[in-house]
Amino acid sequence: MPATRAPAGVRELGPLLSAARAETRARLLDRAKPVALPRGALLFPQDAPADFLYLLLQGSIGLSTAEAGGATMVEILSAGDAVVIAAVMLGLPSPVAAMALAPTRLIALPAEEVRAAAAADPGLMHAAMAQMARQWRLMIDQVVDLKTRDATQRAAHFLACRLVAARGAVELPEPRAAIAARLGMTPESLSRALHGLADAGLLRLHGRRVDVPDRAALLRAALPRGEARSRPA
Amino acid sequence: MPATRAPAGVRELGPLLSAARAETRARLLDRAKPVALPRGALLFPQDAPADFLYLLLQGSIGLSTAEAGGATMVEILSAGDAVVIAAVMLGLPSPVAAMALAPTRLIALPAEEVRAAAAADPGLMHAAMAQMARQWRLMIDQVVDLKTRDATQRAAHFLACRLVAARGAVELPEPRAAIAARLGMTPESLSRALHGLADAGLLRLHGRRVDVPDRAALLRAALPRGEARSRPA
Repeated sequence: MPATRAPAGVRELGPLLSAARAETRARLLDRAKPVALPRGALLFPQDAPADFLYLLLQGSIGLSTAEAGGATMVEILSAGDAVVIAAVMLGLPSPVAAMALAPTRLIALPAEEVRAAAAADPGLMHAAMAQMARQWRLMIDQVVDLKTRDATQRAAHFLACRLVAARGAVELPEPRAAIAARLGMTPESLSRALHGLADAGLLRLHGRRVDVPDRAALLRAALPRGEARSRPA
Repeated sequence: MPATRAPAGVRELGPLLSAARAETRARLLDRAKPVALPRGALLFPQDAPADFLYLLLQGSIGLSTAEAGGATMVEILSAGDAVVIAAVMLGLPSPVAAMALAPTRLIALPAEEVRAAAAADPGLMHAAMAQMARQWRLMIDQVVDLKTRDATQRAAHFLACRLVAARGAVELPEPRAAIAARLGMTPESLSRALHGLADAGLLRLHGRRVDVPDRAALLRAALPRGEARSRPA
């Protein structure tokens, strides 16, 4: 059994490999390479050929684009996500760059092997499409978020979505500038939004950790109000 | 040969069926039903089971969501698109409602048959994933658009993307309120943006038609400027 398999239980590998047949999974893991990145390390640049599928085990990966005149953070992926599944399945360049926003562990699977394995294993093919659909859905949710919520509502929504329990702590290992760009605002606007929520008693700020005493109350503060089709700053 | 096949050449059916084997295509078209919708007709509501894959032959389909407190237009699809491919391939409810924004012709293929056909025809499966990737990419582009461009730049970008030639006319068959919501602004902001571009000589407004004398100049007006991570109103 190769060293790459020893530390990682099947479930830790994420929904993609969990859905594959045991033989498919074993064959893919034989070719897998572990990747560990420090915060700020580039995994691949925009428009790079998708030579590998990266399964995110731990940490945070930011997907960004650089357009003429402006760059932005498109999405932040977390454990369980497959980076970048659509480009790998189609053998196309990635439309986004990928960078570690926190200390991050991944495993790299050769893209060609993933495509061959999916073609031969309907469970894996279905799971790959489910990942594509999930990432499409994340983008839809973000488009709705940007169009219907103001800065404070977006910050509240982002934190409430990271918190699964009714109360607790949200870890924000990413640089604040990356979170601000993900939320479509300046770092100054994010800071104002977070302090406004803190002043309202909805959260307590402790550096990279945010305590949320009442998730339902935070979700109420995330509700879009008024004219839904405008973008109220 | 059923009546539904006669008027539609294979190319008109869009990239999905063009990529299928001739037998697969014939079998799917045997079960296909033509659908014609007037402007404003609902094709299916949000969270509806994806019982059919709709291939958009002509017209315009708006994908929208209704969140607590706000509703918005997520995307506008045009001829060649498959509505809603991800939900059909996975047998899941559609996360968006679909409505005709102009007189629209589609063909409806039973979702179960599409899934069975794709499982047996690698060309069709690849084309289905390509459609999923295209719709993901459209959402990425829109997220970048919303984060980096102001209202006037977004309006200019939208028109320039609809115009394929260096100069010509852009048809806007959709209600202005739908286009404004797609662009994340109020109808009043869209009107101001269009008149500002017209005053600058970049376009001429004729009701549902917009003349663009110089696409390159319009694209320059669409370039994001300055602080890329803010959303300059």
